[in-house]
Amino acid sequence: MRVAVLAGGLGGSRFARALAETIDPAGVTVVGNVGDDLEIAGLHVSPDLDTILYTLAGVLDEERGWGRAEESWNARDAATGLGAETWFQLGDRDLGLHLARTEALRSGEPLSAVTARFARALGVATSILPATDDRLRTWVATPAGELSFQEWFVRRGHRDDVDGVRFEGAERAKAAPGVLAALDRADLIAIAPSNPFVSIRPILAVNGIREALEGRRAPAVAVSPLIGGRAVRGPADRMLARLGGGTGPAQVARCYEGLIDALVVDEADADEDAGIPTIVTHTLMRDADSRRRLAEAVLGVPV
Amino acid sequence: MRVAVLAGGLGGSRFARALAETIDPAGVTVVGNVGDDLEIAGLHVSPDLDTILYTLAGVLDEERGWGRAEESWNARDAATGLGAETWFQLGDRDLGLHLARTEALRSGEPLSAVTARFARALGVATSILPATDDRLRTWVATPAGELSFQEWFVRRGHRDDVDGVRFEGAERAKAAPGVLAALDRADLIAIAPSNPFVSIRPILAVNGIREALEGRRAPAVAVSPLIGGRAVRGPADRMLARLGGGTGPAQVARCYEGLIDALVVDEADADEDAGIPTIVTHTLMRDADSRRRLAEAVLGVPV
Repeated sequence: MRVAVLAGGLGGSRFARALAETIDPAGVTVVGNVGDDLEIAGLHVSPDLDTILYTLAGVLDEERGWGRAEESWNARDAATGLGAETWFQLGDRDLGLHLARTEALRSGEPLSAVTARFARALGVATSILPATDDRLRTWVATPAGELSFQEWFVRRGHRDDVDGVRFEGAERAKAAPGVLAALDRADLIAIAPSNPFVSIRPILAVNGIREALEGRRAPAVAVSPLIGGRAVRGPADRMLARLGGGTGPAQVARCYEGLIDALVVDEADADEDAGIPTIVTHTLMRDADSRRRLAEAVLGVPV
Repeated sequence: MRVAVLAGGLGGSRFARALAETIDPAGVTVVGNVGDDLEIAGLHVSPDLDTILYTLAGVLDEERGWGRAEESWNARDAATGLGAETWFQLGDRDLGLHLARTEALRSGEPLSAVTARFARALGVATSILPATDDRLRTWVATPAGELSFQEWFVRRGHRDDVDGVRFEGAERAKAAPGVLAALDRADLIAIAPSNPFVSIRPILAVNGIREALEGRRAPAVAVSPLIGGRAVRGPADRMLARLGGGTGPAQVARCYEGLIDALVVDEADADEDAGIPTIVTHTLMRDADSRRRLAEAVLGVPV
C-alpha cells in the first residue's frame, strides 16, 4: 500500500510516524512544508522537514516537540554570551545537520536530494520530500504588519492575529522531484492534522500539487487538527475562527474543498456536520496505540 | 606604555598574552591576520582572531592550540554522521561565536566592531583588531596547484611545498579602524613570532600597514618564530628554507627588511649574524615565566 501524506511540523510528523508504524514504512511518502524554512546566520533551517526527519528517525525531543533529544546547547549559550539574538534556538546536534545541509545546498545539491540522503543516514525508510526545492517563504499579515513566518510564530509566540497568509516564491516554485509521482501513484492521499493555513497551504501553493489533488485517482482524506474546536498545539483554532469563520469540522473541511473525500474528526466533534463524509475516532496521538488507531482509521477509510 | 603587535595565530596570541601579562593589557593593541579567514557553510570563521581572542580571554584549548577549552563536538559529530566534510573542525562553543559573528556581519557590522564587542564580552582588556575589515584571502602556490590557505594548511596538513603566496583582495583592503592609529601612537611596534609568509605578510599587504611600519616613529622589533632553525610548530622553517634561502636569523630579518630595528632570537641562534641588532633570550613560551621573560626582552629592547 502506498500513502502520500502532506504534512507540516509536529502534528504532521506524528501522523507520518503513525502511518509508518502501521504499514510498510517504505510505502509512505511524506511531502513536507518548507514555507517556514529560514536562514540563521546564513544556515538553511527547515524546521518542518527536520521535525519529520527527527520524528521518523526516533530522535525528536518529544517533550519539546522540536529539535533533537539528548541535545546540548553550548553553541546557543556561547552565542548568547556574545550578544547574539537566539530566539530561534538551535541545539548543537541540530546545528550539525544545518551545517551539513547548508554546505550541500551551497554546493548545488537540491534540498530534496539532501533530505533523502539525511533520511538514509538516519535509517529512515519512509520517503521525506520537501514540497519544492525552490525558495518558498510564508508571510503572515497581522495587525502589527506583515511578518515572516518564524518571526510571527517563534519570536512573537504566534500571539498576533492573522489576517492573511502569503507564500513568497509560490508562483515560480515547482514540485520537488518525486512529489507529483507520489501523489499520482498513491493508493491513498492523506493530509496530516497540521495547521491548514501555514502548514498545508504552502504545500498546496506549489505549482502542480493542488492540481494533483484536484485530479486525484486515489481517495484523499484529511485529519482535522482540532479536537472539540481546539488546536492540540499552536494557533490553528484561532486562525480558523478568524479566517474560516469557525472551528468546527465544516470549517476544516472547507480549507480542503475539492481536495479531499473525507475528513477524520475526533469523537469530541462527532456530532458536527462537516459537509463531507467523516470518520470519527480518537485523533490525539499520545502514544503508539493512539497513533495506530488513528492510522487504521485513515487507512480503512471507506470512500 | 603602548605596544602595537602584528600577530598570526598561536605564536602571535601567546606573544600578545605575554605582553598583556607584563604591562597594562589595555596598552596592548593586537593587529591580527585575517588572510586565513574562511567560510564554512556560509559561516565566517576567523581562525587567527579567534585564537588571539580565546588566548587573551583564557579560554583557548592550550593543548590543541586552537578552539575553546572544555569544548563539545556534538555539531561536528552530527554533521559527520550526515556525510558532511568536517576537516575544518568547529567545536560547539566555537560555533556559537561563528554564528554570532556571521549574523552581525550580515547585518552590516564591520569585523573590527564585532571583534571588539566579543573581546569586551569575554572580559579582554587588550584591543584586538583585524588588519582589515575588507575581504582578504591568502592563497598558496604549491606543486599541486594553488590552494586556499586552509585547504593547504588544515585539509592537506601543510605538507605541500610552498612556491609563493598571494593575498586576494589586498589591493583594495583598507586597514581596519584603529590599526594605523595604533601603529602611529605606539611606543613600540612588535612583530610576533608568527609565520612571516602566511601570518605577518597578509597583515603587511593591507594598504597603509607596511607604509606605517616603514615610516614608524617608534622602534620596531620582531621575534623570530624559529629556534635553532626549527619552527616551534607549523611550516615556517620549511617555507623560510624554500622561499628565503635559509632558516637562520638573517633570513627571518630579511622578511622584515626596512620594517624592524631589531630581531629577538633564541639563545640557540645567538651566534648567528642577523644583519641587524639582535636581542638574545629564551623565546619559547611554555608558561607564565617564559612569557614574561620574552616580553621583558622585547619591551626592554634598546634601539
